[in-house]
Amino acid sequence: MKLLDFSKLNGLVPVIVQDYKTNEVLMQAFMNESAFKITLKTNKATYFSRSRNKLWTKGEESGNFQIVRAVFVDCDNDSVLLKVEQIGNSACHTGYRGCYYRKLVSGKLKIAGKRIFKPESVYKRNSN
Amino acid sequence: MKLLDFSKLNGLVPVIVQDYKTNEVLMQAFMNESAFKITLKTNKATYFSRSRNKLWTKGEESGNFQIVRAVFVDCDNDSVLLKVEQIGNSACHTGYRGCYYRKLVSGKLKIAGKRIFKPESVYKRNSN
Repeated sequence: MKLLDFSKLNGLVPVIVQDYKTNEVLMQAFMNESAFKITLKTNKATYFSRSRNKLWTKGEESGNFQIVRAVFVDCDNDSVLLKVEQIGNSACHTGYRGCYYRKLVSGKLKIAGKRIFKPESVYKRNSN
Repeated sequence: MKLLDFSKLNGLVPVIVQDYKTNEVLMQAFMNESAFKITLKTNKATYFSRSRNKLWTKGEESGNFQIVRAVFVDCDNDSVLLKVEQIGNSACHTGYRGCYYRKLVSGKLKIAGKRIFKPESVYKRNSN
């Protein structure tokens, strides 16, 4: 049996990334089969970027790698849950702890998360 | 500003469903814009089924509704995190507490979750 069914989403599966200690959901991304294999082999979370159309290892630019502590697969074999150790304490490129830092309150998004760093201090390569 | 960008996935966004007390990730599903609006209006999680090509309110058959306690939107406005109160203590049609009840260990999936009910005792309509 193949571990994952990549056929439902044009070769991708959604991946949920959760802090292995606090269970906070840090982010959601996608993997293709290569990204999944590389993640298992290296133990560093690697995804497929839909916007850049290529593999990316989380942290390759920021240093905020995700060390994989456990991998779970859902009942339909088409979704993955990673429990990770988040290096640098932040998973989001905005500098917040995780990507879900805005809560919907009375129809509007309110900041509900904690900012760990200023993006311009971390993502310098493209601007220099 | 629109709250969500449904354009990246043919009208859908991935939705992560987390227990509002324990932070356990229960399941992952998809919403289209209608499902999102109905969820906000009714406070019961409603998704879009890709296999059945229609809206479904979680629990409509099993009674295991998901009462929405909080809604978070990610940094790119293309992914949703729901914190829910899971009625019946089980979110998965297999009877486990959540869908990620299998852990990848040495290349194989091992049962790591807790079974709450037997599926045949809950999903009777199609077989009767």
